[in-house]
Amino acid sequence: MNISECNVNNDTIAAISTAQGYAGIAIVRMSGNSSLDIIDHVFTCKDSCPSKRPSHTIIHGTIHSENVIVDEVIVLIMRAPHSYTREDVVEVQCHGGIIAARRVLRVILDQGATLADPGEFTKRAFLSGRIDLLQAEAVLDLIQSKSERCAQSALEQLEGKLSIIFTHIYDILLKINADIEATLDFSDEDIEIDILRGILKPLSEVIAKMNISLATWEEGHLLREGAMIVIAGKPNVGKSTLLNLLVGKDRVIVSPTPGTTRDIIEEGLILDGIPLRIIDTAGLRTTECEVEREGVVRARKYLQNADILIYIIDSSQTLDSYDLENISHLNPKRTIVVLNKTDLGTVVYPVDIQGYSTAAACFIKQIGINDIKEFIKRTICVVATRSQHAVISERHRHLLLQAKKECETAVDLLKSLKTDAPVLASCNIRAALEFLGEVTGKIYHDELLDSIFSRFCIGK
Amino acid sequence: MNISECNVNNDTIAAISTAQGYAGIAIVRMSGNSSLDIIDHVFTCKDSCPSKRPSHTIIHGTIHSENVIVDEVIVLIMRAPHSYTREDVVEVQCHGGIIAARRVLRVILDQGATLADPGEFTKRAFLSGRIDLLQAEAVLDLIQSKSERCAQSALEQLEGKLSIIFTHIYDILLKINADIEATLDFSDEDIEIDILRGILKPLSEVIAKMNISLATWEEGHLLREGAMIVIAGKPNVGKSTLLNLLVGKDRVIVSPTPGTTRDIIEEGLILDGIPLRIIDTAGLRTTECEVEREGVVRARKYLQNADILIYIIDSSQTLDSYDLENISHLNPKRTIVVLNKTDLGTVVYPVDIQGYSTAAACFIKQIGINDIKEFIKRTICVVATRSQHAVISERHRHLLLQAKKECETAVDLLKSLKTDAPVLASCNIRAALEFLGEVTGKIYHDELLDSIFSRFCIGK
Repeated sequence: MNISECNVNNDTIAAISTAQGYAGIAIVRMSGNSSLDIIDHVFTCKDSCPSKRPSHTIIHGTIHSENVIVDEVIVLIMRAPHSYTREDVVEVQCHGGIIAARRVLRVILDQGATLADPGEFTKRAFLSGRIDLLQAEAVLDLIQSKSERCAQSALEQLEGKLSIIFTHIYDILLKINADIEATLDFSDEDIEIDILRGILKPLSEVIAKMNISLATWEEGHLLREGAMIVIAGKPNVGKSTLLNLLVGKDRVIVSPTPGTTRDIIEEGLILDGIPLRIIDTAGLRTTECEVEREGVVRARKYLQNADILIYIIDSSQTLDSYDLENISHLNPKRTIVVLNKTDLGTVVYPVDIQGYSTAAACFIKQIGINDIKEFIKRTICVVATRSQHAVISERHRHLLLQAKKECETAVDLLKSLKTDAPVLASCNIRAALEFLGEVTGKIYHDELLDSIFSRFCIGK
Repeated sequence: MNISECNVNNDTIAAISTAQGYAGIAIVRMSGNSSLDIIDHVFTCKDSCPSKRPSHTIIHGTIHSENVIVDEVIVLIMRAPHSYTREDVVEVQCHGGIIAARRVLRVILDQGATLADPGEFTKRAFLSGRIDLLQAEAVLDLIQSKSERCAQSALEQLEGKLSIIFTHIYDILLKINADIEATLDFSDEDIEIDILRGILKPLSEVIAKMNISLATWEEGHLLREGAMIVIAGKPNVGKSTLLNLLVGKDRVIVSPTPGTTRDIIEEGLILDGIPLRIIDTAGLRTTECEVEREGVVRARKYLQNADILIYIIDSSQTLDSYDLENISHLNPKRTIVVLNKTDLGTVVYPVDIQGYSTAAACFIKQIGINDIKEFIKRTICVVATRSQHAVISERHRHLLLQAKKECETAVDLLKSLKTDAPVLASCNIRAALEFLGEVTGKIYHDELLDSIFSRFCIGK
């Protein structure tokens, strides 16, 4: 579906756009043709009514409903097309807290506005052509960002950094397709080898550019979702103590009784701008207790999905086959084996753990924590500062991989120099263009928009 | 201290004024002489800079810090004196979520703004004379209100309803004092009885007006704090089940084991616009278990402070002296005795509970819940719709009671017709005026302002 063909909803929408909670100010936002009419009906001020005012002005007054004052507010007028949605937008700044904004919203809905769907303001900004799909997604990333670096990355995407890269790839591919289609005019003649070679070069360059973008996915994933750090080991080696030390508070109940932690405990932490999810798991052991056994099953699942693993052993006890077996299943590049309890007399040393990073530690004396943090930083930074490029998301990666596959097929075809190679290659390139078009939103369908905007909050 | 004498802080202050959380929009607000200078430094837009724009305009652009874009925003300019604080106010509307507003705030603080204290914007609105202290308190009540009626009451106070009442009382008292002081000119002569009688009449009327306002306190208290409904009774009579039924969700773990609930469980509910705090307590019994015994001690404390008591008994069991003893300590006007478990064969009837409202109930069949709700409504409504007057708070009540006492002393003195009565009475009236002045903020001191504004959130 093309933007021009889309079925735009002409309702005037309204929603509370600020977070709910105890605060000074809240905002109720409206967008659509009737915004100014509606505010004229429910707003009283000293001078002329909102619809008579120029765009980008602020008016002080009161919202009322059947002669009862609902709140003292300021009203912001932003007329089409100079607004977030390119429609007439009216914002009502009312008192914060849980009641005032709801009262104002209800008065506005009573006048015929429709409650906005999640992300509907941004969806309208996209449908009106003010922003592309990558920028719309950046708005979501920015609002949801858990760290500075994540916000900065989203902001660059909002400013168009990623849009430029994808549009560039798209345009080159469009040119390549035109060149291929031009060769089709020589239909019954021999294919001009030089012409095909001339096409192969930029096509390979496009694939290289795609690879550069694809390589940013892991960084994007880390910035958006956070890195998952899983702490594992046998019962009572100090897993919960380490989580408490890393996050700097008593998050988990620590006790000398083995099997104290059963549920998966998760706590957030920002380290060098990367959000971390630190996960404390049940101690790994065979046990008769059903609740604890379920805990062990869950712990093993987390081990499989971790970005970084911290496996703790009690270095005052002889290393046993159970620990060695557990460690052998962990990715050496992403695992640090911590030899805790050095104060109790060490019998296990780093040399005993071949092929893995290690750290000697004594958690109760807070020794070894920095080594663990350094390992986390080092391991994440390999991923997270690998590129200076705008980072992509899982959705972009999925589409880009398919586009790349089509381009690679086209390369193979063109190299074959078979008679029908240009026709077939052109099909592949057109398919690649469609996948790329979905990234920026040049091409879209309702399911795509739903899947993106339903993740937004109401009011954005 | 008088407003003109006050030591106004001339810093330019800044704070995040919206609630923090996942949302579309956040606001960073500045107030003070440097607001426009600061925004000029950190904001870029297409046309002229903010300080060159007229008041009450909106500008779209970006906040930056050392050439790095911090966020895409709109900026609101409200110049002194046409702003909330009567100072130059600049609002930056940035992206919601936890990061964007903090980044913008930091950039603004880096330019020399000071982080605002809680309530400092409203304090400046008070110190500049834009609102009085009653209106400042109304802002706080409005933001904190838990129900519609509470918000409406706060809004009326913000619009000046209570200010008018107190100013009226103050003015009459000022006139009375002038009349008394006029009699002091007849110092050595006999006091003119008619003149004193002429003063006594308006003074009694003032006291009557004070009584009318004082009578609104309980309603104000209920609207602000909510009514406390305490559910009590022996173990296993259905207390937790009733709480779950009243709030309409499975809030409390219910089990047939006596002594399941030990902690005090509190849940909110709005009934006819009045916020209720429904409190489930530990079953009342003598027990060996220390945790449970502590629970019973706490339950009894709540019983003493409840606005409404729901005492549940098992009507299928013979009424014993323990229940009768417990009930006898409860205020009959505010207590409903619920005869639960009617499905198990009733042996206790309403007639057995002399002097108390009762309701037969069978919670597991959801029978009797409406009767209990009706009792709550009826009992609260006696308090909460008693007056059509603006309601007062605990602070107002405290000051008003003292002012009234001074007025009553003055009445007694004037009635005595003693020679020094006018001199002494004038002292009392002046003291009453001081107490009343503290209500509206005509007279204030730092401790008073601190105690009021420290309860605000930062950013208001």
